[in-house]
Amino acid sequence: MSWHATALTLFPDMFPGTLGHSLAGRALREETWRLDTLQIRDFAADKHRTVDDTPCGGGAGMVLRPDVVDAACDAALADNVARPLLYLTPRGRLMDQALVRELAAGPGVVLVCGRYEGLDQRVIEARGMREVSAGDFVLSGGEPAALLLLDACVRLLPGVMGGAESAAEESFAEADAPLLEYPHYTRPAEWRGRAVPEVLLSGHHAAVARWRREQAEAATRERRPDLWARHMSRRAS
Amino acid sequence: MSWHATALTLFPDMFPGTLGHSLAGRALREETWRLDTLQIRDFAADKHRTVDDTPCGGGAGMVLRPDVVDAACDAALADNVARPLLYLTPRGRLMDQALVRELAAGPGVVLVCGRYEGLDQRVIEARGMREVSAGDFVLSGGEPAALLLLDACVRLLPGVMGGAESAAEESFAEADAPLLEYPHYTRPAEWRGRAVPEVLLSGHHAAVARWRREQAEAATRERRPDLWARHMSRRAS
Repeated sequence: MSWHATALTLFPDMFPGTLGHSLAGRALREETWRLDTLQIRDFAADKHRTVDDTPCGGGAGMVLRPDVVDAACDAALADNVARPLLYLTPRGRLMDQALVRELAAGPGVVLVCGRYEGLDQRVIEARGMREVSAGDFVLSGGEPAALLLLDACVRLLPGVMGGAESAAEESFAEADAPLLEYPHYTRPAEWRGRAVPEVLLSGHHAAVARWRREQAEAATRERRPDLWARHMSRRAS
Repeated sequence: MSWHATALTLFPDMFPGTLGHSLAGRALREETWRLDTLQIRDFAADKHRTVDDTPCGGGAGMVLRPDVVDAACDAALADNVARPLLYLTPRGRLMDQALVRELAAGPGVVLVCGRYEGLDQRVIEARGMREVSAGDFVLSGGEPAALLLLDACVRLLPGVMGGAESAAEESFAEADAPLLEYPHYTRPAEWRGRAVPEVLLSGHHAAVARWRREQAEAATRERRPDLWARHMSRRAS
């Protein structure tokens, strides 16, 4: 059985999107993984195919009805494979590489993409959805976040990357307390008066490794004090 | 002049992706905003159209050459409109709603999408690129992150959302120290034995507002201690 992603969405045509191209697209055509969509509107119970209603308590926007989303979840999980059910929302925990690894190691994922003001809270609780956020910004809906998460998962599936190691991955592989990557350089050795750092051309592997480590630490300290604090506290313990 | 986004990419077919649909897609067709792509490979100088080379100092993967990316940037900025030049990389600052608002308020954006191990550090520095990260995970390339960022920007452009206010936006509108959103409810008032919280049906606007504020604070405290700490320190100062 190949890794299986299902997106519940009001815009099925947004899929596979970026994932139809490059290595993920090839892996999709070769059935290394599967992607299907369910149109939430198909699970509306009335003849107008209503999926949403106004928020209780007032306010702008519309909220997706719990009964409609619940029926769509039933359909997605009808094959009895215990795939995790995730809801993409800025109220969720932030996506990170630990979550990506966990999902990629499982049978697949069912992703609920909200629109408007989001889902009725009761269906989130009744289905035990895991709420996941792409970051502290407001999107038009969950679909771009779903594609982002799937991209990160799919590249970890066996056979997709052709076994190419990645420095980026090594970086985030320090699971709990990652550092940012070190900077990269390639030819030409001098470009517009800017030279590749000498140590990288020295052939001294230990010196290269030390320089890269220092650069990764410096970048993390300057750019991401949050990651740096986590890194230091793990190192101390 | 409409808001103008240009993506520098090795996979131009990934665009407009999700942004060709729904409100963003309509706004694109109505020229409320413009999106074009530049194929980085078109700026290679040799007959093999080489864009990358091995990393100086060794290691897996390939690095995009500085001269090739620099030539692509020249082309993107040839219209002399001072659009900010962003490079999507996990080494960057995290995207947030403050960045989204800033970009949406300007003339547009040029987004450099890396693949492989990323860009040669010298072209990032020479062009003064702003490095921006979608989060602490590894993607196959910058394209899904570019679409995510553009989605967040485009929905803020005048005319795209049809003036619909959004609770999510109100939440992140507390610029520096946002809270997560409160939970949403809609009809039916009772579903599978789960009732909409009574206060939301009470018609007491002040009580509803207080309840929502408490819920937003509680969710932030529990789910995102990082945001909560920032919120409390701003409130204290």
